[in-house]
Amino acid sequence: MSANENEIKAETKETGRLEAFSDGVIAVAITLLALEIKVPPIDEGGALLGRLIEQWPIYLAFLLSFATIGIMWVNHHRLFTVIRRVDHNFLILNALLLMGITLVPFTSALVGEYIGHEGEEIAAMIYSGVFVVIAVFFNLMWWYAARHNWVVLEGENLRMARVINRQYRFGPLYYLIALILAPFSVFLSIGLNIALAIYFALPANVVKYLIFREEI
Amino acid sequence: MSANENEIKAETKETGRLEAFSDGVIAVAITLLALEIKVPPIDEGGALLGRLIEQWPIYLAFLLSFATIGIMWVNHHRLFTVIRRVDHNFLILNALLLMGITLVPFTSALVGEYIGHEGEEIAAMIYSGVFVVIAVFFNLMWWYAARHNWVVLEGENLRMARVINRQYRFGPLYYLIALILAPFSVFLSIGLNIALAIYFALPANVVKYLIFREEI
Amino acid sequence: MSANENEIKAETKETGRLEAFSDGVIAVAITLLALEIKVPPIDEGGALLGRLIEQWPIYLAFLLSFATIGIMWVNHHRLFTVIRRVDHNFLILNALLLMGITLVPFTSALVGEYIGHEGEEIAAMIYSGVFVVIAVFFNLMWWYAARHNWVVLEGENLRMARVINRQYRFGPLYYLIALILAPFSVFLSIGLNIALAIYFALPANVVKYLIFREEI
Amino acid sequence: MSANENEIKAETKETGRLEAFSDGVIAVAITLLALEIKVPPIDEGGALLGRLIEQWPIYLAFLLSFATIGIMWVNHHRLFTVIRRVDHNFLILNALLLMGITLVPFTSALVGEYIGHEGEEIAAMIYSGVFVVIAVFFNLMWWYAARHNWVVLEGENLRMARVINRQYRFGPLYYLIALILAPFSVFLSIGLNIALAIYFALPANVVKYLIFREEI
Repeated sequence: MSANENEIKAETKETGRLEAFSDGVIAVAITLLALEIKVPPIDEGGALLGRLIEQWPIYLAFLLSFATIGIMWVNHHRLFTVIRRVDHNFLILNALLLMGITLVPFTSALVGEYIGHEGEEIAAMIYSGVFVVIAVFFNLMWWYAARHNWVVLEGENLRMARVINRQYRFGPLYYLIALILAPFSVFLSIGLNIALAIYFALPANVVKYLIFREEI
Repeated sequence: MSANENEIKAETKETGRLEAFSDGVIAVAITLLALEIKVPPIDEGGALLGRLIEQWPIYLAFLLSFATIGIMWVNHHRLFTVIRRVDHNFLILNALLLMGITLVPFTSALVGEYIGHEGEEIAAMIYSGVFVVIAVFFNLMWWYAARHNWVVLEGENLRMARVINRQYRFGPLYYLIALILAPFSVFLSIGLNIALAIYFALPANVVKYLIFREEI
Repeated sequence: MSANENEIKAETKETGRLEAFSDGVIAVAITLLALEIKVPPIDEGGALLGRLIEQWPIYLAFLLSFATIGIMWVNHHRLFTVIRRVDHNFLILNALLLMGITLVPFTSALVGEYIGHEGEEIAAMIYSGVFVVIAVFFNLMWWYAARHNWVVLEGENLRMARVINRQYRFGPLYYLIALILAPFSVFLSIGLNIALAIYFALPANVVKYLIFREEI
Repeated sequence: MSANENEIKAETKETGRLEAFSDGVIAVAITLLALEIKVPPIDEGGALLGRLIEQWPIYLAFLLSFATIGIMWVNHHRLFTVIRRVDHNFLILNALLLMGITLVPFTSALVGEYIGHEGEEIAAMIYSGVFVVIAVFFNLMWWYAARHNWVVLEGENLRMARVINRQYRFGPLYYLIALILAPFSVFLSIGLNIALAIYFALPANVVKYLIFREEI
């Protein structure tokens, strides 16, 4: 094994543990989302099915939040497939990103419980607001990694990375629009969040087609 | 180290992180199951032992759900021992599978609390319904991996994989039967779930014998 | 890289994922222990310090349960440093072991809340009872691995492994004694649990000395 | 692959699993912090925004505790980049460190709820007290690793490690001061905690400059 290979191994270990820790935090946060779905108390009147159906905003919030955190994980995963180094500032940026993600079970519960009640606009604003913050830190991480030439890409991969980058660059703006929409229409604000989850879940080559009108 | 070995390493890393994240989600979900077992409040009357025994449906739901999620993990584990690549669509399928698994602590609590009370049929239908969804996504993942020739198998392993495949192919149907049984008899529906947990926990060679009547 | 090295790599991956999943479950269970320590409600009368001190059985249960699960993790860790293969039955044994471990936050809360109240004997019996079950599955795992010649040991390591084995072999019996003591004296039963946590936390060479009276 | 390389691999695996388990515990603990942020009940009077703003001590405690645990993880991560071996006593020290970390969601909730109420001094003392304990175990781990010559460092890395060591050596003292300040001024005690989080989050080279007045 050459010195170079040992170095690659050391670097892989370096990012490896950051990925493992981030995976742990994201995995716990995404699983805690489901804790918000509560079993209706037995002693209350009414048929179980009806009371379960009444909780539909909780399920909607769960589905949307799960999809959004899931996509964030995919994005995080992708980021680390193209970089091999981290430094102190990058660790801090990553920690701030994770802080945003751990707040999602709270904002998801907030919006799930307040939709259709007084205060739903505030709930929807906070929901999108946390996603603005997370999207900002994602962009900062990509930008920081690019600025330090950590991104290792060639040929078709480089091209695809540019597409992904373009797909995500406007994330903060999109979520900011959802935030600004909330006081006017919670329906539109949440609807935009759903549309964004679908948009970010599209494979990169579909996005490439949508953006460049190129053959896939 | 040859280029080929580096590629294998890169691919292993590729699936490695997906496995690690999935392990995290499944590990959290399976551990949260036990949170449903509540300590009886001290100030209520009655002996502790009696009040603990009264909770038997909660323990039954815990055992059954733990066994079922445990088997799902084994199945997930097996799937990744024979494939070495993932793509965007596969990540999405895996995310949908995990979404189903994170719902099990809720459906388990629902069935544990409602058995013997009004609404138990609905609870049992939802319980089996989530397993139908999970089983469907498992089959989609196997099918997708096979269609893209990601499955790397030879000789006896190939044979065993076929047995496993056959063992799991009808999972969605079995859980659908449990769902359909629930309105008629919660007892039969949960009983079928227990039988399935035992069936899927059998080693592949026993299943091979049961199916092919071949010597093991 | 020779075929043999590839095989070792494959086997390491094989046990690697089982270890990762087990680590996840044990890490979640050990962290959930602290959730049992509740913040006293603000609106109740009385000084905060006094009300915190009143909760001492909760802290005792936390410390004891954390130590015991921590030692179980060390034991699990050790088991996998000497074996390199797993099979279907071993996965099932490991799942049953983990099931026991996920119950500890419940049994710990039970004993922490019921000490000093009616029903404390039942609580202490259940607490030790779950440890009996866990200790039995640990022994079954060691025995199963040994029976299939998976244990790879030489020289001094082999000697040390025998000491560890002897240290743990009577685990089920010790916890059974703690269970049987509980109806007579909760104090003695919990005391034996504390003594066992200290005993199992001793380094192997100290135990070797205690057993064989040999120089360390 | 030479015998030496195999040994390095074995040692890496040795510390690898300890790191993975610690990552799991820290990831769960840091994610549970956000569970303390509760959704205000719908049926209570008052505007949602106002009731959310009233909870500001909860958010402050969340931010501070997240930052502090995040820094602990970075420190833990750093420790394991320079050592390659662990022994039984080191496992025990690490377990005691993790025990302290799992208590932070409790102490964070305590301080978040009691700030501005009777008993806030006790809450702040306990909050800093747990950090004293954690800082002590961190120093013990560094000291133990150094005493056994496990630390593998050369040149600039060695120099940087000394800086880090100096940065952390007084951690227990700093947190002890925060503890002692609490009965006099909760404001100063929490303020010192915030200052420490910022200080420990500074990159090592900035600290180097602050301490040695050297060029970076």
